[in-house]
Amino acid sequence: MDYIQILGLLAAVLTTGANLPQAYKVIKTRSTKSLSAISFAMLFLGSITWVIYGIYRNDIPVMLANGLAGTLHGIILFIKLTAKNQK
Amino acid sequence: MDYIQILGLLAAVLTTGANLPQAYKVIKTRSTKSLSAISFAMLFLGSITWVIYGIYRNDIPVMLANGLAGTLHGIILFIKLTAKNQK
Repeated sequence: MDYIQILGLLAAVLTTGANLPQAYKVIKTRSTKSLSAISFAMLFLGSITWVIYGIYRNDIPVMLANGLAGTLHGIILFIKLTAKNQK
Repeated sequence: MDYIQILGLLAAVLTTGANLPQAYKVIKTRSTKSLSAISFAMLFLGSITWVIYGIYRNDIPVMLANGLAGTLHGIILFIKLTAKNQK
């Protein structure tokens, strides 16, 4: 693995892993007022589309990274849409 | 352009474009309470890393998509960190 691949891997870990603290915060606090439902719906659909793209391309990293990200986007979107009082 | 490329392009448009409604909402309402600062810091750093990766790989779409996403992540992070009252 050369240093450009390491850079790409680092970028992927950062942008995929970034969903974890946001999902954790939303699950723990149920605070979703500042979140854009449209944004998370687009992220959710986009991640699913990336997974399908990864399946067609036989690209395991694309499938795994977006499978994880999409799951977290889906959880955040679900809590946002079902929250009775937006706080 | 075959249908797999169109699928990838659609995925990229969705996950990159998803940052626009979130940035718009934060700029307009200044509401950042529900946002995770760690998450947006990771997204910001991750996007910059993707841009550098794109420059090394001579990959214009990766540079452009992450340049736009990173700018929006940076704006959201800046408002989150400088907001006096988290609402």
